[in-house]
Amino acid sequence: MTPEPTIRRLAKYLELLKIELANGTEEISTTKIANIFELDPTQVRKDIEFTGIIGKPKTGYNVRELYEGIINFLNWKEPKDAFLAGAGHIGSALAHYSNLSDYGIKIIAAFDIDRKKIGKKINDIEIFSIDKMPNLIRRMNVKIGIIATPPDTAQEIANMMIDAGIEGIWNFTPVHIAAPENIVIENAQLTLSLAVLTRRIVEKKYEKTSLGEIYERDINK
Amino acid sequence: MTPEPTIRRLAKYLELLKIELANGTEEISTTKIANIFELDPTQVRKDIEFTGIIGKPKTGYNVRELYEGIINFLNWKEPKDAFLAGAGHIGSALAHYSNLSDYGIKIIAAFDIDRKKIGKKINDIEIFSIDKMPNLIRRMNVKIGIIATPPDTAQEIANMMIDAGIEGIWNFTPVHIAAPENIVIENAQLTLSLAVLTRRIVEKKYEKTSLGEIYERDINK
Repeated sequence: MTPEPTIRRLAKYLELLKIELANGTEEISTTKIANIFELDPTQVRKDIEFTGIIGKPKTGYNVRELYEGIINFLNWKEPKDAFLAGAGHIGSALAHYSNLSDYGIKIIAAFDIDRKKIGKKINDIEIFSIDKMPNLIRRMNVKIGIIATPPDTAQEIANMMIDAGIEGIWNFTPVHIAAPENIVIENAQLTLSLAVLTRRIVEKKYEKTSLGEIYERDINK
Repeated sequence: MTPEPTIRRLAKYLELLKIELANGTEEISTTKIANIFELDPTQVRKDIEFTGIIGKPKTGYNVRELYEGIINFLNWKEPKDAFLAGAGHIGSALAHYSNLSDYGIKIIAAFDIDRKKIGKKINDIEIFSIDKMPNLIRRMNVKIGIIATPPDTAQEIANMMIDAGIEGIWNFTPVHIAAPENIVIENAQLTLSLAVLTRRIVEKKYEKTSLGEIYERDINK
């Protein structure tokens, strides 16, 4: 399996390549990519190796070739149909995220238990009763499920999805979802990202003070 | 600096500890934590070491002590005031995220350029004109900024925030934000999470097929 940080970095490089393509740039070097993302060029080269794209000694990578290599690697060439469980605030925001299909998925239906929501649409995506989800997963051969329900129902929804044939779940609840080994559970958990933000702020402060220097020295021993 | 995966895992352990506390559990072992999250117990022990909390040889960790240790480590004891730039779908979903204050931040004001939004409220959070943001950051001594604007304005908004004294930015746009070294930029980029999901689904398929076995063998050489 590709290391997760590599996958995440490749998706970042792709954003840069989009800009370079729009600017008409033909070649890009690992050094340039490394400088922009504040990484070691060796790291960038290693990451790109996973895609199978080979650079040339002096000029680096062909921008279009690398762009397409990453798109293929991430499985983003053809957006895959996805079902959204939970049409609350997070679910609605996702349904409005207009360019998800540039990132490999397309939400084709939403599901909720709230009768007031059922039959309505969010950004042209119809909301169905959650009872209809398993049958529709099977009939439409949907492989990706998104869970944006209240936390206490997340595992139950995941079980319904998996039993019906879903292969990958994008989980927006803070709950740890248990699943068989062949199922992919990816947590979009915003709270984990917040943890990195708030901790890093403390660490930057430590760095600045002499107390911080002592602290840093201690933990680096 | 603490490795990012450690910070993210500690935030996950915290969710488990909340449940254990609610259940009245007093002690928890690294093995139990490791089993639930499908990790190596050594990894769990190393992660927890960063918080300074020490377990006992047989019983493991005191649940409340570990809970509070992680809360302190993540700087989540007192939620910090945060400003939200961009009151669109993502911004609104964040403003409705009722328990952000359990995760270290509290959105106290939102900012937008859309005159129709200015003066209105989302979940009791008032929307101001973006022009007022720098002055309010200074006056209210706000240190955390959230960017949920269209991508093309993200860097400009970040510059405004940083000039006014923001120390950490939670970026919801797919844009790479350039910032001085003492500023924390945390990308909540959903697209990076999607990259992991869609790539992992491919990898699980490879694992299942004999072609996959050959492929796996090759890349593991």
